[in-house]
Amino acid sequence: MTEAAVLGYGTVGSGVVEVIEKNAEVIAKRCEGLHVKYILDLRDFPGDPYEDRLVHDVDVILSDESVKVVCETMGGAGAAYDFTKRALMAGKSVCTSNKELVELHGAELARIAKEHNCSYLFEASVGGGIPLIRTIYRALTAERIESIFGILNGTTNYILHRMELAGIAFDEALKEAQELGYAEKDPTADIEGHDPARKIAILASLVLGKKVDYSSMYMEGITKVEPVDMEYAKALGGSIKLVAMCEFAENGVYAMVSPRFIPKDNPLLCVRDVFNGVLIHSDMLDDSMYYGRGAGKLATASAVVGDAVECVNHPGKNVGHCWSEEKVQLKDIGDLSFRYLLRVKQEGAAAAEAAFGCEAKAQEGVNGETAFLTAPVTERDFQKKLADLPAVIRYYRV
Amino acid sequence: MTEAAVLGYGTVGSGVVEVIEKNAEVIAKRCEGLHVKYILDLRDFPGDPYEDRLVHDVDVILSDESVKVVCETMGGAGAAYDFTKRALMAGKSVCTSNKELVELHGAELARIAKEHNCSYLFEASVGGGIPLIRTIYRALTAERIESIFGILNGTTNYILHRMELAGIAFDEALKEAQELGYAEKDPTADIEGHDPARKIAILASLVLGKKVDYSSMYMEGITKVEPVDMEYAKALGGSIKLVAMCEFAENGVYAMVSPRFIPKDNPLLCVRDVFNGVLIHSDMLDDSMYYGRGAGKLATASAVVGDAVECVNHPGKNVGHCWSEEKVQLKDIGDLSFRYLLRVKQEGAAAAEAAFGCEAKAQEGVNGETAFLTAPVTERDFQKKLADLPAVIRYYRV
Repeated sequence: MTEAAVLGYGTVGSGVVEVIEKNAEVIAKRCEGLHVKYILDLRDFPGDPYEDRLVHDVDVILSDESVKVVCETMGGAGAAYDFTKRALMAGKSVCTSNKELVELHGAELARIAKEHNCSYLFEASVGGGIPLIRTIYRALTAERIESIFGILNGTTNYILHRMELAGIAFDEALKEAQELGYAEKDPTADIEGHDPARKIAILASLVLGKKVDYSSMYMEGITKVEPVDMEYAKALGGSIKLVAMCEFAENGVYAMVSPRFIPKDNPLLCVRDVFNGVLIHSDMLDDSMYYGRGAGKLATASAVVGDAVECVNHPGKNVGHCWSEEKVQLKDIGDLSFRYLLRVKQEGAAAAEAAFGCEAKAQEGVNGETAFLTAPVTERDFQKKLADLPAVIRYYRV
Repeated sequence: MTEAAVLGYGTVGSGVVEVIEKNAEVIAKRCEGLHVKYILDLRDFPGDPYEDRLVHDVDVILSDESVKVVCETMGGAGAAYDFTKRALMAGKSVCTSNKELVELHGAELARIAKEHNCSYLFEASVGGGIPLIRTIYRALTAERIESIFGILNGTTNYILHRMELAGIAFDEALKEAQELGYAEKDPTADIEGHDPARKIAILASLVLGKKVDYSSMYMEGITKVEPVDMEYAKALGGSIKLVAMCEFAENGVYAMVSPRFIPKDNPLLCVRDVFNGVLIHSDMLDDSMYYGRGAGKLATASAVVGDAVECVNHPGKNVGHCWSEEKVQLKDIGDLSFRYLLRVKQEGAAAAEAAFGCEAKAQEGVNGETAFLTAPVTERDFQKKLADLPAVIRYYRV
């Protein structure tokens, strides 16, 4: 039986305790057993079933040699960073859902873990409960990964899903999401694309083995999407989703977040509601996709506990995989080629079709607009030509 | 650099050599390196780039102490069984795509591997390149898996896909598949459901930890599916796919293979053409799905090599997971409840609707038929009532 501690008794932290306790039997089939000895939180939880394990001082945990695994579910890069470092230096493995900390300091923390014969694991930091991190470094080990397309934010996927299904505007769908607890009071990080950007930076760094500097990443959120755009997408058999993408080319790595037109037959079309889905294109396996709940108390907790089990099974060893502290700059997305779903005022339709070519029409001349799919063109050339086409209302990369 | 041998230089075997050679650089990032020292085959391959590594006598491999990993891509449970046993007894880990051998003797071989501090891994035996085995025993370790729904056969999925898309009959779609190399000359194992049955038996055994006796599994293939059935499914927003399912109940395990109506919004709908997809329902994560190429030279080889890398990273250790030799009988599917998509001759429609209830109509009275979705009913009761409804042409469990 391995003793563990949970740092942060919020949604995910309490989920971790719940999973470990409720599924003790299942867990004991996969390892010698896991027991939550301490729960760290500044708050009190009178009446909580696990109140007896609550401590307010992290030193109680860090100085207890029997504790081998720490689940960090505090969030943020302040105290969580400090506690994680100290736990690893004490030879205690740390498993986390904290994407902010992983993106910022993952390389350093993984290095400290290695130096102290323990592990720093972060399956839950990207795609919630979907096994992505372990899939990339443990299963797709013979693959040259060429690109990753991820629907990695349940909030925005839910909003777009509701817009598509019910024809409601963005503001109304956002309000709905907030009422259901799928969106925060301040939803900026989700709706502006920062959250999926951070997640794709983690995945890209993991594949590359070096830290992708995501501060320069092109990020475009969903605040400008309109129900009529969804209708055009549907007319072509597809849909619009917020996609975080990275592409590994000979000359470097590209990454971006933007709403994309997902065409007919693309498996990402089935990723609806709050679900996440990650489509990986690699040279031997071709396309593979991993779908599931990217957020939610138990789904996320499940991934943290899965990591904890990995630690229990490798005591005194460094397992897991991270990237080095060497930074890599993202290449300019201007190099990339896309088709575009263009929405144009009718008076400018002919000029736009002449500029970009037209591969398929979503509609022509209804409500004073035309919508069509262009031929492939580089983002650089597209933006250049776009400057001379004021009739273009909106566009979505395919 | 770890020395490996490939047994069987057929499609998958040659794929394994190709993956190891072509992606040596990628592999070397995930382990200390892999080198194919021998290729075993009874045949000669004059002019083959790897001809110099070919041997005809397995003893050359088994007696070479430098060989630590053996990739068994021979197929069948004859010589492959013998060679695998002997390799494991010599402390050489074995990685395989051989589902027949894994289903029949996996437990024994895994035990021998454990006794000899090496590993018996079989990611490629189910779902080709999709990481399923490792996901179940390495990632979903805190999960109580409740059910697995798998589209696990590319041949039949392709055939049904073509029937749906082009409205062609089964025989024509099968011929097409054979011409494209997606179906064998003797396609029985695929079209009658034996292949997916074996695969779901492997997954069920892995989850349970005991050997699921699949000889009693209910198996129904796709030979009776007609294009008009696909149209009814489409009218309800869904599709028909050959599904291998297992369900873990309090009182035991159920498993079956049959064509199923996949309803609207089920992510399995996006699993088209030759692709496979496995939807796992578990208590904490809820639904997760794993999609990719379930067959094909490089996709399958990729999974074998992924296993080989795992072995290289754990020399002299037993990793992986299998089930015990204790057999478990499948429960009677009569206990299970389903909705059914019924196709009825018009004259019997009223009686059928009265017997089963009607939740949705696909169509009514066209071409002398009605098709509708029943309310849930146990398979046992369904079959009983069906005996008195001769007007029912066909049915699909939902």
